[in-house]
Amino acid sequence: MIEYRNLKIAILGGGTVGANVVELLGRHREELEARVGTGLEVIGVAVRDANAPRTPAIPAELLTTDAESLLTAADIVVELIGGLEPARTYVLKALRSGADVITANKALLATHGPELFDAAEQVGAQLYYEAAVAAAIPIIRPLRESLAGDRIRRILGIVNGSTNFILDKMDIEGWSTDEAMRVARELGYLEADPTLDVEGYDAAQKAAILASLAFHTQVPLDAVHREGIAGVTHEQVAAAHDAGYVVKLLAIAERLDGPDGHEGVAARVHPALVPRDHPLAAVHGGNNAVFVEAEFAGELMFYGAGAGGVQTASAVLGDIVSAARRHLAGGPGVAESTSADLPVLPFAAVRTRYQVALDVADRPGVLAAVAQLVADHGVSIETASQTTRPGEGGAEPTATLVIVTHRAAESALAATVAALGRSEAVERVTSVLRVEGL
Amino acid sequence: MIEYRNLKIAILGGGTVGANVVELLGRHREELEARVGTGLEVIGVAVRDANAPRTPAIPAELLTTDAESLLTAADIVVELIGGLEPARTYVLKALRSGADVITANKALLATHGPELFDAAEQVGAQLYYEAAVAAAIPIIRPLRESLAGDRIRRILGIVNGSTNFILDKMDIEGWSTDEAMRVARELGYLEADPTLDVEGYDAAQKAAILASLAFHTQVPLDAVHREGIAGVTHEQVAAAHDAGYVVKLLAIAERLDGPDGHEGVAARVHPALVPRDHPLAAVHGGNNAVFVEAEFAGELMFYGAGAGGVQTASAVLGDIVSAARRHLAGGPGVAESTSADLPVLPFAAVRTRYQVALDVADRPGVLAAVAQLVADHGVSIETASQTTRPGEGGAEPTATLVIVTHRAAESALAATVAALGRSEAVERVTSVLRVEGL
Repeated sequence: MIEYRNLKIAILGGGTVGANVVELLGRHREELEARVGTGLEVIGVAVRDANAPRTPAIPAELLTTDAESLLTAADIVVELIGGLEPARTYVLKALRSGADVITANKALLATHGPELFDAAEQVGAQLYYEAAVAAAIPIIRPLRESLAGDRIRRILGIVNGSTNFILDKMDIEGWSTDEAMRVARELGYLEADPTLDVEGYDAAQKAAILASLAFHTQVPLDAVHREGIAGVTHEQVAAAHDAGYVVKLLAIAERLDGPDGHEGVAARVHPALVPRDHPLAAVHGGNNAVFVEAEFAGELMFYGAGAGGVQTASAVLGDIVSAARRHLAGGPGVAESTSADLPVLPFAAVRTRYQVALDVADRPGVLAAVAQLVADHGVSIETASQTTRPGEGGAEPTATLVIVTHRAAESALAATVAALGRSEAVERVTSVLRVEGL
Repeated sequence: MIEYRNLKIAILGGGTVGANVVELLGRHREELEARVGTGLEVIGVAVRDANAPRTPAIPAELLTTDAESLLTAADIVVELIGGLEPARTYVLKALRSGADVITANKALLATHGPELFDAAEQVGAQLYYEAAVAAAIPIIRPLRESLAGDRIRRILGIVNGSTNFILDKMDIEGWSTDEAMRVARELGYLEADPTLDVEGYDAAQKAAILASLAFHTQVPLDAVHREGIAGVTHEQVAAAHDAGYVVKLLAIAERLDGPDGHEGVAARVHPALVPRDHPLAAVHGGNNAVFVEAEFAGELMFYGAGAGGVQTASAVLGDIVSAARRHLAGGPGVAESTSADLPVLPFAAVRTRYQVALDVADRPGVLAAVAQLVADHGVSIETASQTTRPGEGGAEPTATLVIVTHRAAESALAATVAALGRSEAVERVTSVLRVEGL
């Protein structure tokens, strides 16, 4: 019934992941072919410079610099080049030639996703990207298929292993920011230019992909509010520890009511205080986890290593098996659903909670003044706790006041903090962190 | 290009899950139809007694007692009857009529899986069962697809919420077994006849399904070694707590070397000590989690509510969306892979670690005698710790000796414990528990 022929696989990119994919496909070829029900043949690995030094995992005869010829000859194209160009051009060309494409390229998807998904739909091909968000942690299929009949409310993800490693070491070992960064760099968790990780760009790309998928709505990368961990201090992490929280860099995508009362979606990346008994608080080191709040399924979490060549290769191989099975079954691929087409809301529309620490003068009426100022902005305080330090050398004693608000609009909270900074009752705003997972 | 017509959905069983599926399909019909790209119509709900009292979620006009006519008229049949018959007959009939079938029936899959998967493959239909193992926690698709290119070594699952609730309360609240069971019953975690849960039958069915899927090998239910939690005492849970462990009922499926040196698979269910810093130790209350050790992906965990009508309905709805998309795309379903066809190994071939607590006389030479006896069975001791209690009323002092072994064959460990029970150096073997997750 089914014609038995080798499915032709082209790999674009000869880096670590590409080498791992070639090696694992070779090592487990029989096993994988038995699972798929047909032959799987790597017809070539496209690289920029065929003479560059590289791992012996890729046989020299597979190397080619002619990516375009390679990809048009393939049934399945695996894009592992990274970056926007020439990855975008190659992926479009592969899809238009009818090949299924597998990519681990988060930047490409977050930036050009709609164009690529459209191209796939036009010809009935399919774009797979399980490896793009959290390496081997299955999160794309669960959102795309298992939860396709549910309604997702919110996703909280620890999707960047480097920054989780840094924050985790600051929390557990009591290291300073600099020390944690230095060790992260030594252990290979950070690139020479750590901006992509530390400033939250990497997490923002993943947030855009997750938000688009979870809410059946195209969420562009530039709609993702982004704050990195560069401003997180040793003191904040230590204070969080004492207060029963842990600081995590979260990628958050959620369905919420917009200013006009209509439902929309918002996506953001920022450090946040997470209660220590929340499952995300137990995600240590370079691990990733995606916590999903769904209307019917309730709370789910997907946990594992979020990076690594072999881990990423595992996800790519899973996609290769899916693509191969689809080729055998025939019929068009399943189009990426943007059926909900919800409005994408600005960060100011998000409702969150703030923990604000203030240095204040230790005299009567200060707490009342602060509480009044906060209330004037329509924000209510859940807890306020004050610690007094004696003034040095006969000076007036000062106090640290830590307030945690109830949930309020981000715009109101930001305005509250700005007003606190200008208030005569307040000497200094020493820390502002959002609280999530309560 | 695609003919727009309503896909006909038949539901077998009008209990809680069936009512939830009908209700959610009705409430979110437009949203789901937009995601799928076609109409979805529930054509009937087959029940045994159309006049029995039931939730108003199912409109009376949908009720029918003629399951056979209903299922042969449907594109997608959802089996929520439970038990072996008539579920098996109906599912076979539906598959043979070309319908895709969705089932949440773990007993049916664990007992008649091969027959059902064969029937589906014969006609190119597909059998979906995401709801059968851990309700809304996506575990079937991740194993079936995301990890299809990887090689799974081991699965450790907390797959029964009732027993996890009981063990968790004993651990955290210090409750006795009876007290925890009573509360579990009051809160609806246990059926009037708790045997299925407490004796591990439910978990064993799920272990058979997970093992078959993960290792591409048909693992029959009667090959799953099963021990329940009835023998777990308050004292064991308290001692585990003090020693840095927590007692969990685990469903374990693993790839291992058989006695002849050839690889095989084994599946088992029993209580085990899990180190407190293992991700599974943080699974509280009635929650479930499946921890996967894969060769390339590393360690993954899938966590969430493992039971509940709405949660199960979420998984069923996800399968309905998948089945509907497949119907639109055309082509045969993907056959269940049993391509590896590994031998299924007996429990005696499993390698595990024991923690054994013994009452011994507190005199010189007892530890040496015990250590020698253990070594004689080819088992080595990792840690041994002795606590002495003064003898009462002038009697000889007694001591409790707790040993934890290194990994050894189950058969050797069982023989060791039997020999310890007969040894003159030992007054009594007070506790035997396996240790997992180290």
